[in-house]
Order: sequence, then C-alpha cells, then structure tokens
Amino acid sequence: MSKRKLNNITPQSEDFAKWYTDVVVNGKLIDYGPVRGTVIMRPNSFGIWENFQKIFNKILDSNDIRNMYLPMFIPKSLMDMESDHILGFAPELATITKVGEKLLTEEIYTRPTSEVLFCKYFAAHTSSYKDLPIKVNQWANVIRWEKTTNPFLRTTEFLWQEGHTVHADPLEARRFTRKMLKNYEKILANYLAIPVMIGKKTSREKFAGACTTYTCEAMMKDGKALQSATSHYLAHNFSKPFEIGFKNQQNDIEYAYQTSWGMSTRIIGALIMTHGDDRGVIIPPKIAATQVDILTFNPKLDIEQDNFSRELVKNLSRVFKVRADYSTATLGYKASESEIQGTPIRIEIGPRDFSNDSVTVVRRDTLEKEVVPVSKLKKHIKSLIEKIHNNLYDSAKQRMEDNISRVNEYSELKTNIAKNRWVIMPMCCSDNESEEKIQKETGATARLIMLGEDKKDSDSLDQLSKCGFCQEKETRRYVLFAKAY
Amino acid sequence: MSKRKLNNITPQSEDFAKWYTDVVVNGKLIDYGPVRGTVIMRPNSFGIWENFQKIFNKILDSNDIRNMYLPMFIPKSLMDMESDHILGFAPELATITKVGEKLLTEEIYTRPTSEVLFCKYFAAHTSSYKDLPIKVNQWANVIRWEKTTNPFLRTTEFLWQEGHTVHADPLEARRFTRKMLKNYEKILANYLAIPVMIGKKTSREKFAGACTTYTCEAMMKDGKALQSATSHYLAHNFSKPFEIGFKNQQNDIEYAYQTSWGMSTRIIGALIMTHGDDRGVIIPPKIAATQVDILTFNPKLDIEQDNFSRELVKNLSRVFKVRADYSTATLGYKASESEIQGTPIRIEIGPRDFSNDSVTVVRRDTLEKEVVPVSKLKKHIKSLIEKIHNNLYDSAKQRMEDNISRVNEYSELKTNIAKNRWVIMPMCCSDNESEEKIQKETGATARLIMLGEDKKDSDSLDQLSKCGFCQEKETRRYVLFAKAY
Repeated sequence: MSKRKLNNITPQSEDFAKWYTDVVVNGKLIDYGPVRGTVIMRPNSFGIWENFQKIFNKILDSNDIRNMYLPMFIPKSLMDMESDHILGFAPELATITKVGEKLLTEEIYTRPTSEVLFCKYFAAHTSSYKDLPIKVNQWANVIRWEKTTNPFLRTTEFLWQEGHTVHADPLEARRFTRKMLKNYEKILANYLAIPVMIGKKTSREKFAGACTTYTCEAMMKDGKALQSATSHYLAHNFSKPFEIGFKNQQNDIEYAYQTSWGMSTRIIGALIMTHGDDRGVIIPPKIAATQVDILTFNPKLDIEQDNFSRELVKNLSRVFKVRADYSTATLGYKASESEIQGTPIRIEIGPRDFSNDSVTVVRRDTLEKEVVPVSKLKKHIKSLIEKIHNNLYDSAKQRMEDNISRVNEYSELKTNIAKNRWVIMPMCCSDNESEEKIQKETGATARLIMLGEDKKDSDSLDQLSKCGFCQEKETRRYVLFAKAY
Repeated sequence: MSKRKLNNITPQSEDFAKWYTDVVVNGKLIDYGPVRGTVIMRPNSFGIWENFQKIFNKILDSNDIRNMYLPMFIPKSLMDMESDHILGFAPELATITKVGEKLLTEEIYTRPTSEVLFCKYFAAHTSSYKDLPIKVNQWANVIRWEKTTNPFLRTTEFLWQEGHTVHADPLEARRFTRKMLKNYEKILANYLAIPVMIGKKTSREKFAGACTTYTCEAMMKDGKALQSATSHYLAHNFSKPFEIGFKNQQNDIEYAYQTSWGMSTRIIGALIMTHGDDRGVIIPPKIAATQVDILTFNPKLDIEQDNFSRELVKNLSRVFKVRADYSTATLGYKASESEIQGTPIRIEIGPRDFSNDSVTVVRRDTLEKEVVPVSKLKKHIKSLIEKIHNNLYDSAKQRMEDNISRVNEYSELKTNIAKNRWVIMPMCCSDNESEEKIQKETGATARLIMLGEDKKDSDSLDQLSKCGFCQEKETRRYVLFAKAY
C-alpha cells in the first residue's frame, strides 16, 4: 500500500519521477501547455528565472559582454551550412512551411540554438583584429522537439541565455571558455545552492560543433546527473564555414576563434530535484521569487491585527521579496500552501503572537519554528537567509560526496552504477564504442573528464593509473560516469 | 542633385523613409535577418529595450503584477476558439506543419499574441471572486507575417510585453485599462521624451476582440502618427468563449472581466523618428544603452593620458552608462561614430584638455561643446542629462502642437492632411464606411477619439459641435485623423 501522501505529493522514496511531476504542478510552478512538451511557467517559476537573469546580467556587465537579440527564424539553407551542427538537431527542428494559406518557397526552422545566426553576424562585423574580441549574449526561447519531455528538464520550448565570443587569439578564447564555466559553477553554488562537478565532455557527449565542451554536472536526489551549464570552445569549427576572418597584426587573414556558453530554465528543475522533499519544493532563498510568505490568521476578525500585518508587510518588503496572504483561509491551510511552493521562510501572525508584538518564523528547510520579536525581525530574516542557503548547499554537497565512488575496475563501476551512485574511473579509451558499451551495460554515460588531467588544475587524481576499462594502458584521464537526465 | 550626405545618411528633407533605413543601419541599431522582415537587434538597440524592461518591471511590481511565460506555440484548434481574434490575424500566422521529416497531425501557429493561452490559463485558475484579480505580464517574441515590413515599426518577429488582468468587477477592469494607458503615457514622456495624444480607438481601428482600445499616438518628424502603446478593455469577449467564470459573493456564476495592454520594440522606431536628425540617431538619455561616450585622442601616444582616460571611465561608470573608445582612430572619426549612434553626451579627451585637467563635453542634441573641469564633471553630466531630456521632449511637444489643426469641416480636414498635419474634427459618424471614405480620399485614418467626450476627462473640446463629416447632427465626439505608420 502506498504511503500517506502529503498535499497530493507522491513520496520521493516511492516514485521520484512521480514526486517531481507532482511538485512542479502542486507547487504552482507550471501548467502544461496545449502543445506536447510545452509548459506554462507560472509566476513562481518565472520569478526564479528573472532573478537568474539579474544575477547573470551583472556578470555579463563586469565582463564587457552586451546583450542583443537575433531572429527566432532560420532559413533551411543557412542551417545547412555547418553540417555537424545540423546533424545534431535535424530530427528536432520545428519547420514552418506556410503563412496563412500561402506555402513558403523555402522552409524555415525555429531556432534550436542561434549559433548560425551569430556566425553570420560576426562575419559581417569582423574584418580586423581591432574588431575583436566581440562579446555578446542573447536571452531567448529555443525549440527542440525532443521525444520524451519533462517540465524544465527537457521541454519542446525552453528559455536560455546563449553567450558568444569571437577572439583573435586562441588562448584568450580557451581561457574565456573556462572563465565562463567557473562563473556558472559560482552561480550554481552561491545562488541556487547547488554543488557541481566540473569537467570536459568526452568526444561522444560534447556539443555538435564544439572543439571542447566544459560542463557543470549536478547530482539530483535520485542520484541521477543533470547537466546544468555548458561552455564550449568552438575553435574554427564555425568560423571556417561562415568565413569569420580577420586581418591580424601582420596583415595576414586568419579565421577567428569562438566560444559559446549557456544556461537554461533547466536549472529550475535542478534546484527542485536537489532540494525538494516530501512536503514539496524548497527554493533556495537567494534565487527565490518569494523569500518570505507572510500568513495572517483571518485578518477580517480584528482590524488592529490587520493593521499590524499590513505594516509588517510594508516594512519587510523594503528589504526582502515578500508575499502576503490576507485571505480568510486558515493559518494551517496557508502554511501548507507555503510549504508546497517552497518559500524558504514563512511568518505566521496568529492572535497570540500579535498581542506580544512578535511573530512565528518558520524555516522551510528544517521546519524549525521560532517566536521572534518584531523589533528583531529584519536581522533575524537576514541571518536566516544565510543559514538556509548554507544548509541547503552543505546538505547537497555532503550527499554528492557520499555518493561518488572512485574505482579502478569496470566491475566496480557496474556495481556502483547499479546503486545509482556516481563513479570516477581511470579510462584511456576515448572512443565512442567503449562509452556505448558502458551505457548499454549499465545505463550510465560519461558525464565528464575530470579537469585534474590538465597540469594547471592538478589535484590528487592527476596520477597515472591503469585504465579501468581496457586494463591495458596507464592514463591520467579520469572519467565520471553516472545515469543522467 | 542630392544634398551632401553626412555619414552615408540621406537628409530627412530629401527622403524621410530612406533617412530612417540609413540611420537604423549606420547607427548600428540593426542588421537585417536572413528571413524576410526580420531584424537583428544589435546591442545599441537591445540596450534600449533592456532599459525599458527595467522601467516597466518597476511599474508592474508597484501594481502587484507578476511576470510569467507562456509557450510560443498555439495549436490551430485553440486559436480558432475566439473567431474575431483569429480573423484579425489569420493571414499573418506562421504555421508549423512538420518536425524533422515528420508531418504533424495538427498544425501549430507561432503566437501573434498570447491572448488565447492566457485565457486557457485564467479559466484553469479562476473559480471564485477570491481568486481575482489576477494580474500578470509576459515579455515575449511574437510573430506576425506582415506584407510590408520596416525595422522596429513592423517586423515579422518583434519583442513586446503583453499584460493581462482578470477582474470580478467591470468598473475595476475599466479603471485598470485606463491606469495602464496613463502609465504608458508617462513612460513615453519621462524616459523616451516622446509626447503623445491619448484616446480611444474607433470601432474600425480597435484590436480585434477588444470592447474598448485606448492608444498613445506619437507624431513622427514626417508628420505621420505612430501607435506607441495600447490598452484594451476586453469585457466578456474572451471570458465567454474560454469560460473564465467565477462564483461571486452571492454564490452566482459570472463571467470575469479582462484587460490587456502592450508596448513593443516599435517604441525604438518611435524614438528614432521623433528625435533623430541628419547626423543620425539621437537617443534620449534616460533610456539610452550608452549615456556617455568617452573618446580619447590616440591613447597609445601618451601613457599618462591613457591613465587619465581610464581613471575617468572608471569613475563615471559608477554613475552613468559609459562606453569608452580607446582605439587608435582619430578623435574626429570617433566623434562622428558617436553622433550617428546618437549617444546623448560625448566626452572628448584631447592632449590639450588633459593637461588642464579638463575635458570637452559635447551634447548630441544641440552639438554644443563645453570645456569642463574634471572635478565638476559628474554634476555637469547629471544636469546635462536633464537638459537634453527636456530639450528633446519640449521640441517634440512643440512640433506636435504646431502640427495639429482643429477643424469644423471635412474640406479643412482634407487640406490639412494633404500638408501631413494631424486634424481633430467633430464627427458623429462612427461607422466603418465613413472612415473608409476618409482614408480613401485623404490617406488618413482615425487615430483616436479624444477622451474629452467622457465627462470625467472634460476639457475645452467637451462641447457640442456640428459633425464635420455629415454636417447634420451635433456631437461631442472629436476624432483625431492622421496618416500613420
């Protein structure tokens, strides 16, 4: 028999996938859209995205990266120019063939990414090394018609930022790719409270068209990996077919060196599956659309209490993102609503609290309750925001570390993957076939190559070990395997 | 023979339309996209849109309106539900019929507006008067395949915000429609330095599906009107077909009352054609992506001067939106580039200025130059921003007032429209045929009905006059006619 369901939410231990779809709907994050695989981002989830936009725009600004906007339509002929690129996306391209009742002479795709349009743009504006670097970013919706969809994780349409840079110097471009990776890692840690493993994608897993793809991989509560951000060094892969050339200081024509990097509404899925519990979603306070829910005991009963509540809301709104619920529902009902939606802090104003000039403050993460005098409330909430953030991050980090095994042999990899753990194994075999075999036998894919293999990022892993897969050659290449979303 | 062209810009007096397309390209605002009627918004124009977003988001916030995001795809069956609505957009709908090589079973439209999806959403979340009002907004791209296109004014894809509210009380909804109209009028005046006439659209010109459409109409430098924002009272027009019903306080089921209101990237066209001159664009300083261009005389020649420039840029960047040009081009070239792009203020750092610890400050609007000591620079720029804004607004307002005629007879309307003026005429005939005749004979359309006709907004026009068109009945209905974009 199934366990008791809190608020119509399936317990995580019973069915994690069902738990997820229960909380995204009951937590008022999404409604399903009328076209297969599309979702409506309700204010609760779009507010998280808006906060991410603000945070990321500051990073863009401090790196002299400017926002711009390219059309969502790409003609077939243009998309076909970079053949690796089109091969990766071909089956997922939504295609416009007519307008009103008129057939178009050329089919038009809705963008699955804007690489080709950016490249056309760069080609038009790059002639000398003096024009470089160009550093731009776009906030946009993109369309990929995936076979199986899941809110936030894989939807027909999603929102993302895609940044693109063009450099005269390949080293500068490579360094920039890594810099953006580090920025993503920081945002994930400092705002979404999500610890990640960072590294390079294997040749089989990298972005079609990239020379090197770096990734941030986060561990969800079911042990699966979720790719949460990527940063690509594109080298000449686009600048050659799109003829993005420049005259260097010696007056010779060279192809430019490009990077691209992106993060999407997928991160909302990541934070839900990193922090949520059987009561619902838990939104980390530094990215939350609502940081504090203020719930009043039926305020219509007492005008003085109503004034007290409204004054409190006004004061706290100056400092925090506050939402007030003045409705006539019971405090219990309101508290339960606040919990499902994962507001990190809720303040309950009951008749008893009010008469003592104090309120009850409840943390969503630990459910601890505390009566706090109004005079100390702002300071208390500020410190609580730090505490909740740190607790969410530390718990997730501990869980990740507890669930990664370092193994020397493929048999150990199999045992650990079967337990839904992540596995790091020395592996010299960089061919697609070896990874395909592992995926077929275990369900796991290569999530990343540890950066320890680079001299500059040496860590304890940077030593020679026998390849765990072929058991033949020695290697410094350590690969992280996991089942993934 | 053609007049001398400054910076490849056709003089306004020679060909205003050509001037416009010259400045949007040479001012680095747009590139044309690969699909007909699409444009790339370069950082110079997208930065204006970003600033508008920040300003408008504050207004949303202070009105308890939350942002959300709906899918861009609308299935045909859903679009067909509100028939007036579909009739208005049918020939402009881009239609997706296949994905990869697979044909879809139902055709899908790219949104020309999101009314129908919002309505489905409202229907799902409205059951009691306690759920109302719902107040939400969306920032999105929309697609309308128009026959003739023009950058910003009419493009296949454009960006906009569309706000939607649902109310239990029709008066509250009507009041809200007007409130948003006033907000638009204020943004146009206070940030874009664009004065407008506000009023109601005639039945022929209103939004398909609206009960009442309010509009802000701006006068471009060629005398044409540009609709710059609209606010619609939708009454029951959508709530009936989409079944957005609620239980009122008496426990009876009622249909809800809706509003919608929007402003788009069109406003960038509006500000270009309101303020620009033969030297290029002039961006009003309170909406400009770059408020101050800092142009240095070849900085590589003198390290001390270079340090001086960089220090200045650092200091000013804390207060203003600053862009620095350290390149080796001549000051004259840099100044000319700054002028075409319309940066409201530029600072020139020549070798002489620098040695006196002062810089040359140039206003883009009047081209006045002034040598300003560095110690007084911040204060000077702050006051200059106010002065430039006021000058742009006042000039535009004066021009608008000078070019509106109040007439009593249709013959006078004809003479004035022929001179590209705006004309206000008393007109009782509210049928489409009368307006069609006027358009056919003069090229002008009814831009708005003056709000003076409402008792609450009474002004000097609010008096009975004989209808200028039929010369029969007396009326308090005054209609503004103009040629329009």
